[in-house]
Amino acid sequence: MSGRFITLEGGEGAGKSTLLAGLRDHFEAHGVDLLLTREPGGTPLGEAVRALVLDPALRGVCAEAELLLMFAARAQLVREVIRPALAAGRWVLCDRFTDASYAYQGGGRGQPETRIRELERWAAEDLQPDLTLLLDLPVGDGRARAAGRGDADRIESEEDPFFERVRAAYRARAAAFPRRFRVLDAAQPPERVLADAVAALAPLLQAQAR
Amino acid sequence: MSGRFITLEGGEGAGKSTLLAGLRDHFEAHGVDLLLTREPGGTPLGEAVRALVLDPALRGVCAEAELLLMFAARAQLVREVIRPALAAGRWVLCDRFTDASYAYQGGGRGQPETRIRELERWAAEDLQPDLTLLLDLPVGDGRARAAGRGDADRIESEEDPFFERVRAAYRARAAAFPRRFRVLDAAQPPERVLADAVAALAPLLQAQAR
Ligand SMILES: Nc1ncnc2c1ncn2[C@@H]1O[C@H](COP(=O)(O)OP(=O)(O)OP(=O)(O)O)[C@@H](O)[C@H]1O
Ligand SMILES: Nc1ncnc2c1ncn2[C@@H]1O[C@H](COP(=O)(O)OP(=O)(O)OP(=O)(O)O)[C@@H](O)[C@H]1O
Ligand SMILES: [Mg+2]
Ligand SMILES: [Mg+2]
Repeated sequence: MSGRFITLEGGEGAGKSTLLAGLRDHFEAHGVDLLLTREPGGTPLGEAVRALVLDPALRGVCAEAELLLMFAARAQLVREVIRPALAAGRWVLCDRFTDASYAYQGGGRGQPETRIRELERWAAEDLQPDLTLLLDLPVGDGRARAAGRGDADRIESEEDPFFERVRAAYRARAAAFPRRFRVLDAAQPPERVLADAVAALAPLLQAQAR
Repeated sequence: MSGRFITLEGGEGAGKSTLLAGLRDHFEAHGVDLLLTREPGGTPLGEAVRALVLDPALRGVCAEAELLLMFAARAQLVREVIRPALAAGRWVLCDRFTDASYAYQGGGRGQPETRIRELERWAAEDLQPDLTLLLDLPVGDGRARAAGRGDADRIESEEDPFFERVRAAYRARAAAFPRRFRVLDAAQPPERVLADAVAALAPLLQAQAR
């Protein structure tokens, strides 16, 4: 049986990386062969693109270049990592994926949705997650959490209205694809967020066990 | 009066950088305010992308990622450097531009022309050179010249059939856009190539002088 592809989405500091770590243990307990990865990144090319696109010293990066860089990393990740893992029957859990481009480069930076959709088709092979967990959190809360981590990267250095547009775009994606998305209340304590995520994943895991 | 945009194209070792240096002196003698740049590169982001896309250690970069990286660098170069220079009345001489994507990522790697055309429209603002000098040279000659320079980058490490496709795609571009392109015989000695380039540029320079 081919593997399952699960993505985690949400604004800065919503708790994606924290949830990813919690889910890893949960999957291990279920004997699922899991591959963890992240975007942008996950390949040597992708990690180099990540360093570039998040570099706070590169102030004037245009929205078009940012969108193209994100999809360059994604094109490589899909072909080098995600597709081979799924074909081998592994599960893939990815910290951000194409929905993040709709939210950040689309909602945040105003790049047209049709443009992103075209790139999704040919650069990302139109690969769609089996399930996307959206960690939804008021912008101020997420920024307060992320602030504890120290130096902000180039995208984290945007202003609140940018992140409000990102959040709205994420929620619009969830509303447009209700069967794929589960919206989790990320304002809850970490163990409650994890419990909600586990509940959302249960049907997929049961289908796997059968 | 707005400036002129001139691009140099051709395969590896065809003599673009050599001609660029020769043309710089020629333009200076004509009192033209000239900006020299190159692709991929020409901006901090673009030079970082250049290092990435030419890195011989990154062996398995997919054609889609390569195409997207080239246009990321180009999107930034057009907006940060070329458009402002042209608007200020300067001339811009660029070592490679979008034709190189049609030749390398299109002809060489098989990326569809329609895909490149779409990126050209929105990522490169459909900016077209006023004149493109194509340095045409048999593949073996160019590779022999370039070999003298030492370590090959990732793209230079391709095999001859790749470069034959690149050359054919360049010539097809020149045939499709005969008013914009001048094909120069790059097998001639450097001073003859320069003289041909100067002759090709003469009408533009005369229009400028008027
Ligand atoms: N449910 C939660 N309640 C309170 N704090 C949390 C919660 N989840 C994570 N945190 C804390 O918030 C901070 C950001 O969490 P985390 O790094 O997981 O977010 P993220 O979504 O991965 O952020 P980024 O988008 O920047 O990668 C961390 O300090 C983490 O410990
Ligand atoms: N017309 C010429 N005749 C003979 N040798 C030449 C000529 N033009 C350039 N060369 C030599 O060939 C080598 C490659 O030239 P150059 O670097 O200008 O090519 P290029 O087109 O810029 O290559 P690349 O695509 O790798 O940047 C150099 O050693 C240069 O001195
Ligand atoms: Mg994180
Ligand atoms: Mg050169």
